[in-house]
Amino acid sequence: MSTVAAYAAPSAKAPLERTAIERRPVGASDVLIDIKYAGICHSDIHQVRAGWGEAIFPMVPGHEIAGVVGEVGPGVTGFAVGDRVGVGCLVDSCGECDHCVQGLEQYCAQGWTGTYNDRDRNGDPTYGGYSTRIVVNEDFVVRIPDALPLDVAAPLLCAGITVYSPLKQWNGGPGKKVAVVGLGGLGHLAVRFAHVLGAEVTVLSQSLRKRADGLRLGADHYYATNDPATFEELAGTFDLVLSTVSAPLDLDAYLGLVKTDGALVNVGAPEEPVSLNLFSLLFGRKTLAGSIIGGLGETQEMLDLCGEHGIGAEIELIRADEINEAYERILSGDVRYRFVIDTATI
Amino acid sequence: MSTVAAYAAPSAKAPLERTAIERRPVGASDVLIDIKYAGICHSDIHQVRAGWGEAIFPMVPGHEIAGVVGEVGPGVTGFAVGDRVGVGCLVDSCGECDHCVQGLEQYCAQGWTGTYNDRDRNGDPTYGGYSTRIVVNEDFVVRIPDALPLDVAAPLLCAGITVYSPLKQWNGGPGKKVAVVGLGGLGHLAVRFAHVLGAEVTVLSQSLRKRADGLRLGADHYYATNDPATFEELAGTFDLVLSTVSAPLDLDAYLGLVKTDGALVNVGAPEEPVSLNLFSLLFGRKTLAGSIIGGLGETQEMLDLCGEHGIGAEIELIRADEINEAYERILSGDVRYRFVIDTATI
Repeated sequence: MSTVAAYAAPSAKAPLERTAIERRPVGASDVLIDIKYAGICHSDIHQVRAGWGEAIFPMVPGHEIAGVVGEVGPGVTGFAVGDRVGVGCLVDSCGECDHCVQGLEQYCAQGWTGTYNDRDRNGDPTYGGYSTRIVVNEDFVVRIPDALPLDVAAPLLCAGITVYSPLKQWNGGPGKKVAVVGLGGLGHLAVRFAHVLGAEVTVLSQSLRKRADGLRLGADHYYATNDPATFEELAGTFDLVLSTVSAPLDLDAYLGLVKTDGALVNVGAPEEPVSLNLFSLLFGRKTLAGSIIGGLGETQEMLDLCGEHGIGAEIELIRADEINEAYERILSGDVRYRFVIDTATI
Repeated sequence: MSTVAAYAAPSAKAPLERTAIERRPVGASDVLIDIKYAGICHSDIHQVRAGWGEAIFPMVPGHEIAGVVGEVGPGVTGFAVGDRVGVGCLVDSCGECDHCVQGLEQYCAQGWTGTYNDRDRNGDPTYGGYSTRIVVNEDFVVRIPDALPLDVAAPLLCAGITVYSPLKQWNGGPGKKVAVVGLGGLGHLAVRFAHVLGAEVTVLSQSLRKRADGLRLGADHYYATNDPATFEELAGTFDLVLSTVSAPLDLDAYLGLVKTDGALVNVGAPEEPVSLNLFSLLFGRKTLAGSIIGGLGETQEMLDLCGEHGIGAEIELIRADEINEAYERILSGDVRYRFVIDTATI
């Protein structure tokens, strides 16, 4: 066991504060990572505030982790001390079900183990990336290409893979028209990926406020969804509409933008049920689907692509004592486009 | 022009009654069909009662038409007098859009022309199959295999293709587990098709009342949806759940039966919006989709398969003067599994 510094929420209603936590000894297949940067994901706030129920306190959030290997167990074959690595949303899965065998660990039939706010195989709570060190089985560690600075790489581990995976699954590539709904932490990366994958990219944002950013990130077109004319002009246009927003979406209106045989895929989701007219799917044989993060292999594939094309998140680097303020700013939509904690300040 | 006998609804509130209508002269590419049988589709009732709005009266319903060619225009190349043929839901489409070119006339970008309750290119109303003759462009006529009696073939033209097309689109074949929701006009054909296509077939019906029929039609399993244990026992079981019911469905409950990467596809649809929790799609990358009928090529493919395997609808043959009573029986769920009008009685 080793004691490491961390920022934790002692309970659902309290702000995060500096504390110390125990990390497990480095096992045979484990990698100890000196965490350099940790991204702040909107879901950190949900979980810290117990918005999804069943939260474990004290909670150390953080599943967008970038760092350097500090120690490896004797059985580790894939990593060496000094390697630049990342950890995302999951740190374990059964490894035996059909999905795990196919590299779809995110759909593990037994349920995967979350990087924080979860319990490992021994029943001990998992603690996330808002800390200085973490111990993770090497199968759940990915390599960050040398070309990619660690700070802008961190958000790729959740925000990045969350949008990359559906773009691949629903063929958002050459010859395809892809719309990205929402230009936030997830959306700005979706625009970059869809552009690099070869699609014609349209941003659908509430207003035109971030238009210049959208075009700079690789969008070919930018429309405001607060203008009803947008929905008329773009009717039946897209092969894929990727919604990154977690506010309730007018599904019927957005399905109207989808071509015959196209898809509206949600990676954000409101907590409350939404309304849907099934006729919006019937006429045009349309698909409404959802997707969560990605498997380990696909995450590595994404990082390699990012290294090749110099794709990182647009970030605002903060000190650890700014985390609580950053949460408030995220809730008011005031971030372009991801907060990343410099863990040296913990 | 020729005058033919028909059964028509004079208005949305009146019962259907015997009348006479005019059919257009047989044009160069037209086929005149002596109608032998016409199936009664639930959507006939919707339209006769103007449930979908914008209805044209008098209305001669019927888009499940089976008959024999009585005359062909000079330019007709595919059919000859005496051929056994069918006509389904559509009698024209633009022929030029991407979808028409791909044989997806049912998703024609210009909107196809319905067999009845619609207007042709000249603006004249179209009249359907509850009549003794119809004139149709040969491109919208399909061939009924000799092995298939015309009466049991008629319902294939709408009910059959409506379920066959999604079974093909979502790969309901060998090695796949397919559930059919509802054992009615559509559902009983879906069971037959899924079985012949090689899937393992489960019927999900409100009760076990029709279980013997379901198993006889080719189902491997039969469950009652009024038993909550069904949803527990079958959680995460199916590659494809095909819903043929038009009553509001608990989408979240049925999505719970779908495997990771599986689909819940609706061919029936309630007129009112339904509720959906998007998390039901996210965890398991699931698809919710819809589908309407099928293209002309796919309809012919289905009929050929039916000829090969002796697949027809299970029908109750009625006289034309029993149509209004049949409507009432359909609305009370009292039909196994499709009413077909013997048009010799008109």
